[in-house]
Amino acid sequence: MSSRQSYAVIGTGALGGLYGGLLANHGFDVHFLANSDVEHIRQFGLQVESPLGDFHLKDVNVYSDPHSLPACDVTIVALKSTQNHLLREILPITTRGGGHVLVLQNGLDVEADSVAVVGDDRVLGGCCFLCSNKIGPGHIRHLDYGAIVFGEYRADAYGKPSPGITPRAELIANELQAAKIDAKATDDLLLTRWKKLMWNIPFNGLSVALDASTSEIVGHQDAVVLAETIIREVHGAAVALGVPVPEDWIQKQIDATKKMVPYDASMRLDFRHGRPMELEAIFANPIKAAASVGFEMPSVSMLLKQLRFLGDRQLMQQR
Amino acid sequence: MSSRQSYAVIGTGALGGLYGGLLANHGFDVHFLANSDVEHIRQFGLQVESPLGDFHLKDVNVYSDPHSLPACDVTIVALKSTQNHLLREILPITTRGGGHVLVLQNGLDVEADSVAVVGDDRVLGGCCFLCSNKIGPGHIRHLDYGAIVFGEYRADAYGKPSPGITPRAELIANELQAAKIDAKATDDLLLTRWKKLMWNIPFNGLSVALDASTSEIVGHQDAVVLAETIIREVHGAAVALGVPVPEDWIQKQIDATKKMVPYDASMRLDFRHGRPMELEAIFANPIKAAASVGFEMPSVSMLLKQLRFLGDRQLMQQR
Repeated sequence: MSSRQSYAVIGTGALGGLYGGLLANHGFDVHFLANSDVEHIRQFGLQVESPLGDFHLKDVNVYSDPHSLPACDVTIVALKSTQNHLLREILPITTRGGGHVLVLQNGLDVEADSVAVVGDDRVLGGCCFLCSNKIGPGHIRHLDYGAIVFGEYRADAYGKPSPGITPRAELIANELQAAKIDAKATDDLLLTRWKKLMWNIPFNGLSVALDASTSEIVGHQDAVVLAETIIREVHGAAVALGVPVPEDWIQKQIDATKKMVPYDASMRLDFRHGRPMELEAIFANPIKAAASVGFEMPSVSMLLKQLRFLGDRQLMQQR
Repeated sequence: MSSRQSYAVIGTGALGGLYGGLLANHGFDVHFLANSDVEHIRQFGLQVESPLGDFHLKDVNVYSDPHSLPACDVTIVALKSTQNHLLREILPITTRGGGHVLVLQNGLDVEADSVAVVGDDRVLGGCCFLCSNKIGPGHIRHLDYGAIVFGEYRADAYGKPSPGITPRAELIANELQAAKIDAKATDDLLLTRWKKLMWNIPFNGLSVALDASTSEIVGHQDAVVLAETIIREVHGAAVALGVPVPEDWIQKQIDATKKMVPYDASMRLDFRHGRPMELEAIFANPIKAAASVGFEMPSVSMLLKQLRFLGDRQLMQQR
């Protein structure tokens, strides 16, 4: 057991609570940074319901002050990227022993904020394919899926040779798998991220702009054409950047969504609950990356402007 | 008085009620086709509040059955264009003596439905710059403005020499002016229509898509850029079609809207009250016209798809 890596998990939401909980439940040394539910978790522990098996953790290492966190081998960033300003304080603490950072956030270039703190060579990033909710303080309900695909992150990696699957990525993958997490290391993080953006951009964006579920969107003749236009634009950006997303990935996003149960995309949930939307990570960063090679994304840009208007108005109404 | 033309006014809403009422109040022979408020107008007359002077008309010639209408020299089409299927029944009655049709509807090529009934050479079209509401049965409140700019309509007139201001247009303009209406005949209806579309398309469209007043739109940094993008696209379409809208008309739409009092665009009112939106006239027809010369309107097309989704959903919810 002593050869196992220690983990800092930043955030005890649907994602950090689940993955960190699974690691702890399988004997890993896990330290959580939590916010509002620190006291609850200290007193009552962490409750996880999951198709992998329900479990309850007593005696969770949970902290509200990042300065109380120990140095860990791996820091899993499981915050919303709208909270990334907090990383400037947190990461120097958890990585002070030279540990790595695994950024499990939606969008593109979300790793840049971690790189700015710990440097380009200590950051991995990954996409989660997960259906999980936090249904109360220290209480996670994992509903379905749960895969993590992750790999080495390099700023400006477009067109450069892949570093392959590094030993440290392999080690993390093995440990996550030992905790029953469906984790897979990839030698092409950009491909993984852009493939996921081809769903996230149209369906998160339109779900807020149209106040609609995914099944309403793919069930309407004009909305589904609009979704496809957007998906095609994201695909075009990926290809322009040299990311080899196959052409048939476009139609697959529509087909898969038609087969899904009616579903509220996470951005719609954020918007409905008055939480900030991850607009920079999911929309602005891909637009910026595409623009760097002269590829314009007019539909995605229009959608982003609409979402900023809606988000800002909601913020004003909350005041 | 006997040399004056007779007028059939199709619709007794904010527009038909006001202009038809002004004509009748100034001694013209006016015949209204009304829908829900026929009985009310028969019994109580037509009440108009206006900065031009309030007035009340007793003994209004009002009909619910188009077959009761007399032949008139001029038929003013003052329906929403979403009701244009009714013209097939109405216009053969009112124009059977050879009369002309003046189409006062929003959008582009709204005259085509009248042309299909009475032929290409008997139709004029016009834009109204009017702030008026129907506030109850047979009760019009005219708030501000009121200009009509109208002229000869020809299908496929792009790039063809203007017929100029015809004697019949001049005659109608003179009679409308005699009824205190700020009417002006133009030799370039397409220019008038496209200039108006440069406001109608962005501000009607975004007001529904964002559920926002015009002042909210021009007051938000992203929404105003989006509005300008759309205005620029409409301008590009006009220019591609050979319609000489000056470049500075783009910025003028933004500036003028910034100076307006907070205002609900008419399409927003239609949507809020569950009435069909004039999507074909204001969005689809301009897109079609632009496409005929190979000019694409991606932003306007995206907006149209969103509006169709929102409109169709509302229709389903009403059932």
